[in-house]
Amino acid sequence: MTFDFMETKRPLILICNDDGYTTPGIKTLTRLARQLGDVVVSAPQDHQSGKSSAITVDYPLRANLVTDEPGFKEYAVTGTPSDCCKLAYDVLLDGRRPDLMLSGINHGYNAAMTIINSGTLGATFESLMHGVPSVAFSLGDHRPTADFSHCEKWITMIIERVLEHGLPEGVCLNVNFPPGCEPKGLKVTRAASGHWDHEFETFVDPWHRTGHWMAGEFVNHEPEDDTTDYYWLDRGWVSVNPCHIDFNAYKAMPAIEDMLKQSK
Amino acid sequence: MTFDFMETKRPLILICNDDGYTTPGIKTLTRLARQLGDVVVSAPQDHQSGKSSAITVDYPLRANLVTDEPGFKEYAVTGTPSDCCKLAYDVLLDGRRPDLMLSGINHGYNAAMTIINSGTLGATFESLMHGVPSVAFSLGDHRPTADFSHCEKWITMIIERVLEHGLPEGVCLNVNFPPGCEPKGLKVTRAASGHWDHEFETFVDPWHRTGHWMAGEFVNHEPEDDTTDYYWLDRGWVSVNPCHIDFNAYKAMPAIEDMLKQSK
Repeated sequence: MTFDFMETKRPLILICNDDGYTTPGIKTLTRLARQLGDVVVSAPQDHQSGKSSAITVDYPLRANLVTDEPGFKEYAVTGTPSDCCKLAYDVLLDGRRPDLMLSGINHGYNAAMTIINSGTLGATFESLMHGVPSVAFSLGDHRPTADFSHCEKWITMIIERVLEHGLPEGVCLNVNFPPGCEPKGLKVTRAASGHWDHEFETFVDPWHRTGHWMAGEFVNHEPEDDTTDYYWLDRGWVSVNPCHIDFNAYKAMPAIEDMLKQSK
Repeated sequence: MTFDFMETKRPLILICNDDGYTTPGIKTLTRLARQLGDVVVSAPQDHQSGKSSAITVDYPLRANLVTDEPGFKEYAVTGTPSDCCKLAYDVLLDGRRPDLMLSGINHGYNAAMTIINSGTLGATFESLMHGVPSVAFSLGDHRPTADFSHCEKWITMIIERVLEHGLPEGVCLNVNFPPGCEPKGLKVTRAASGHWDHEFETFVDPWHRTGHWMAGEFVNHEPEDDTTDYYWLDRGWVSVNPCHIDFNAYKAMPAIEDMLKQSK
């Protein structure tokens, strides 16, 4: 597969999502990004919500080129969001490094610490590991008919700023929009802590077998903390959460060392 | 589904993995854990490597009880490692909170920052969010015939210490063993940074369609840094990496705020 993308001075923007390449959220994001640069979409052929940073190791990926226009290519990839990004960086972009990677716009919030399960963020974290400035966008409305119009000027502003200034090394942005109304403004936030309650609905199927549907309700542990994403989203603001992926619990290391060294 | 697990004073240990419930790694870990407590295995029915913290939202899970003995239950679950843990906490344990959650022993290292793609760690991070002390174990040998015997006394020691002392809040352990020889000792480490190179092998199938197999080679960015996991694994030591899941890039927040607020 050769990559014949035109050589221009315009920025190159890679776009992914987890809802699949046909959904209104990624179509909106693509339309906005094309006003600011050349765009390659490498997004899942099918719905890949909740896929986190999963990768596909047991079968091969296929990338179907579904649109090929000057300054715009669109690939539907038979894999996860992380797969889509990896394949773009290693194969589809033919070695050209994008100036920016965007993920979304997701249909539904990706906020609080449960972003660990998000495929939208999975694509973003993958791009971070490739050293590409990356931004995830999500709207707090799960419906396929969700209205993204009130997000557009904010998305354009954020893309412009990141293209101009870049992002600190090892940092990506997780942007969430409240649904259904013009945001009151934008806040830089941290992810709220919380947990899922009653995560499964257990049922018996027509063949008398027990099954468990994931369901559940997110319980915010700090609803009144005005440094968190959900605090501002609940009040109609755009939340921008700067993220990194450093799992090292540095502060705990001396205590762990002591615990493992002591004699019984 | 009622849970009739016997009420005892022994610690309750939940076990998961990503290679599937039948593999030698989880069988070894289960045997060792059963010497120290009552054990419930909730592990994937099939191979789930590379599934990160993916969850299953598009179809229901099933939990097949394959072993039911005094002090030991074993469920094969039709989902990801995170699914297995969530289902255990919400349904299978019938509300009883385990004293400890163990994941593995994985066939193959889970080290460096690429643990973000690991299902073994996915189960561990899920348990962390449930407030259960959790430890992931991995051996640097991918083969189904991998020999775990040199890991056993270390695993038992670590389980005993964590049962006795617990772990700092929000911290889990990622333990890796070098393959094939008695470890020289144990080091508390951080995850090395690095990236995957040449991630795909592109091929043409018998029907003339192009596909891409994930492959690749991990490039360690800091092979000589003696604070990293790979440094000590390469030299025959056990690596214990204390992990947390805080994606917030606190230090970058003021700079992001400035960037987004400034007028163009």
